[in-house]
Amino acid sequence: MVIKSEVLQKLKNIAGDGNFFTDKETLQHFNYDATERRYMPDVVVTPKSTEEISKIMELCYQENIPITPQGGKTGLSGGCLPVKGGVIISFKNMKNILEIDDKNYTATVEPGVVAADFQKAIRDKGLFFPPDPSSTVESTLGGNVAENAGYTRAVKYGVTKDYILGLEAVLPNGKVIHLGGKNIKDVTGYDLVRLLVGSEGTLAVITKIIVKLLPLPESRRTLIGYFDDMTIGADFVVEIFKSGIIPTAIEFMDRMTMKAVESYLNVELPEAEAMILVEVDGNKFAVDDEAEKILKIYEKTGAKDFRLAIDQKEADKFWIIRRESLPSLKAKGGDQLEADIVVPRYFLPAYVKNIHKLADEYKCQVAAYGHAGDGNLHITIIYHKSSFQDLVNANELFARFYEEAIKLGGSLSGEHGIGITAAPYLKMQLGETEIELLRSIKKAFDPKGLLNPGKIFDFKDEE
Amino acid sequence: MVIKSEVLQKLKNIAGDGNFFTDKETLQHFNYDATERRYMPDVVVTPKSTEEISKIMELCYQENIPITPQGGKTGLSGGCLPVKGGVIISFKNMKNILEIDDKNYTATVEPGVVAADFQKAIRDKGLFFPPDPSSTVESTLGGNVAENAGYTRAVKYGVTKDYILGLEAVLPNGKVIHLGGKNIKDVTGYDLVRLLVGSEGTLAVITKIIVKLLPLPESRRTLIGYFDDMTIGADFVVEIFKSGIIPTAIEFMDRMTMKAVESYLNVELPEAEAMILVEVDGNKFAVDDEAEKILKIYEKTGAKDFRLAIDQKEADKFWIIRRESLPSLKAKGGDQLEADIVVPRYFLPAYVKNIHKLADEYKCQVAAYGHAGDGNLHITIIYHKSSFQDLVNANELFARFYEEAIKLGGSLSGEHGIGITAAPYLKMQLGETEIELLRSIKKAFDPKGLLNPGKIFDFKDEE
Repeated sequence: MVIKSEVLQKLKNIAGDGNFFTDKETLQHFNYDATERRYMPDVVVTPKSTEEISKIMELCYQENIPITPQGGKTGLSGGCLPVKGGVIISFKNMKNILEIDDKNYTATVEPGVVAADFQKAIRDKGLFFPPDPSSTVESTLGGNVAENAGYTRAVKYGVTKDYILGLEAVLPNGKVIHLGGKNIKDVTGYDLVRLLVGSEGTLAVITKIIVKLLPLPESRRTLIGYFDDMTIGADFVVEIFKSGIIPTAIEFMDRMTMKAVESYLNVELPEAEAMILVEVDGNKFAVDDEAEKILKIYEKTGAKDFRLAIDQKEADKFWIIRRESLPSLKAKGGDQLEADIVVPRYFLPAYVKNIHKLADEYKCQVAAYGHAGDGNLHITIIYHKSSFQDLVNANELFARFYEEAIKLGGSLSGEHGIGITAAPYLKMQLGETEIELLRSIKKAFDPKGLLNPGKIFDFKDEE
Repeated sequence: MVIKSEVLQKLKNIAGDGNFFTDKETLQHFNYDATERRYMPDVVVTPKSTEEISKIMELCYQENIPITPQGGKTGLSGGCLPVKGGVIISFKNMKNILEIDDKNYTATVEPGVVAADFQKAIRDKGLFFPPDPSSTVESTLGGNVAENAGYTRAVKYGVTKDYILGLEAVLPNGKVIHLGGKNIKDVTGYDLVRLLVGSEGTLAVITKIIVKLLPLPESRRTLIGYFDDMTIGADFVVEIFKSGIIPTAIEFMDRMTMKAVESYLNVELPEAEAMILVEVDGNKFAVDDEAEKILKIYEKTGAKDFRLAIDQKEADKFWIIRRESLPSLKAKGGDQLEADIVVPRYFLPAYVKNIHKLADEYKCQVAAYGHAGDGNLHITIIYHKSSFQDLVNANELFARFYEEAIKLGGSLSGEHGIGITAAPYLKMQLGETEIELLRSIKKAFDPKGLLNPGKIFDFKDEE
């Protein structure tokens, strides 16, 4: 888009010389995320304070310039991509942990704090912030809040949303709002805190975050097991809950994901249809007891090669196998489509079986892994754009995966957001009236539609 | 208000003969709640289905008739009172538990199901729905969802909101919406499920609820202890978390509440400034270990008469003391004002000390009890309307309690809602921009302002 030179000058004056960029070389550091799609912004600013952000947004509001907030660029739905150009507000200069309150068990942070840095800072004080996505070494807390990021521990601890007590944010018109605080409970007015969490940067730009902390769990136990029949996984998960255990994590990989990991990490895994990893944490007597019970459930449901990690070192090895799923699949090359589907937990194994059947039908390579305890599945389709038939098949199959999930009462996304990748399928899950309501909320916050435009609703890829 | 006779006839045709009431005697069964305020509706309907509710609401929308949804009338903020008259939709005929899904750990219910009935139905299947307010024998799940009810177990398990996965609801114009489902995770679009939970019946009428269930905890331990110095309570709570324990409940009563309970139940309690009850639940080895640790913390922080309940029977006795706080105070008679204040957890004991100081200043009787683990305090002011000075003092003091909480970063309500009782103080907690946002959301759902009018915003008591 064309931005008038006096507006550019004003933006530069607000952000300061070293924090305002329009040169192509710099912009290229801000025009991509983990979807590997690229969209050029016109300007990047790296403000240092809420006040600067407020002024930038007020100016852009007057001038009708789109704004896209951006964190660590690890998103898998394109949430931080400036699909309509305009200004990127990057949080590179807002990385301060403002307070760790070890009396109230809260912390106050700026959105640019990298998740892993925060984890380290609180662990040193014996505190625990459960949400810790796989992207932790790069993703920012602001991005995790905007996308309501999930992570492996969500079975027991819930998602990012469950740990956000308060927010400071700037509305598109530049007004600063303060929502919630350090209170564990708060029912004053509608829950705007939880409305902003997961709103994918489309309602307001978050500038401060107050999170809830827990005490560090005393102990943890990690188990791994393999199944020859995928569908047994459903009963395996039910049996764990039936035994009274609320596991921290129940993670899953299918055969193709295992094969990809084997070759990527140069390890050997048992020949099986599915791997299921279980972790429990908490009181040390409890986790020992629960680990024993889970071993029996592996046995009872016909798992093979199941074992309890003898120490944290071995547990880390189990986790590496699971955590390297995405990089291992990426390393297989070709073109890839990724979905972040959810189905009611018990239906997950049958759904996985079904997608493999469909993959055969469409002659596509498909791998699936994810959070079996939440019914949240990451699916990768590997194909080759260069073959037109392959491209058509892959895209049709991609849509079928959403369709089949919705048939089971599932959802288009569990933790990555709708962004631009799932936006074309929104109407599969939500009716007209529901979408109208979403739009009316968007309008209440952002009447001009300037904030992170092109996301969630009506995305049309103009690549 | 005046409702045209042909509109009354239409309403009667929709609801059916035995489910439509305009006679004063019947209306009087629907014109009050636990606030003991009374507002007369013009009509009460007791529909049997979503379809009927949709038709009733469509008609009222055309005719500009206010609608107030009503559950068990146990609310303490006036949420179900028809302050502008019009139609009450009572859920007396929608009490079905539609499904208990013991594979996906969910249940689907109609809003009129009484909380205790639901608890019994799932307990029989080894399932657990943590939110269980003190009003459980009367309050309905619909009301608990509308108010985002809290309860004693919220320290560990979170509030009602954390267990609502899906909703069916009817918009003021009669359109039916379906939000969420049985999925544990779902980030498709803005989180309308959690926007409706706690919206106090002002955005849509909830007609179906899908809740998340957990396995029943294997075991529980309950402890009680007394403190001569209120402020020690702050460190007592921190010490529990520091020891790595996430207790199920940490409950609190002050001296005056204890005295009220003593005389109401005819029991003798130790002379003390504060009682603190702690409960832990979960794995049986864990709770034994945690109970030992908590006993040591009672000792370390200078509690007296502290003990671990030897069995569930004794635990029940501890709980009765705490649970009878509200009835015991109500039994003291006089006129009463009740607040449901929240402050950041660590500040609670100092806050309680402060309110007692203020009570002396204003020459009012004040009792406080509540959920120390959440920083959520219920305060009762007992006064006599008949004395004008007493009335003025009580109301000034009431406002001061809110003010002092807000100074500490607190909230007007933790679990009862704003309704009409806290509405006059809304501007203490929220700024103009924040309130404008709330109003714009209200408008998006209810452009004519017909649904549960007079709540949250601008309530003016015209008694």
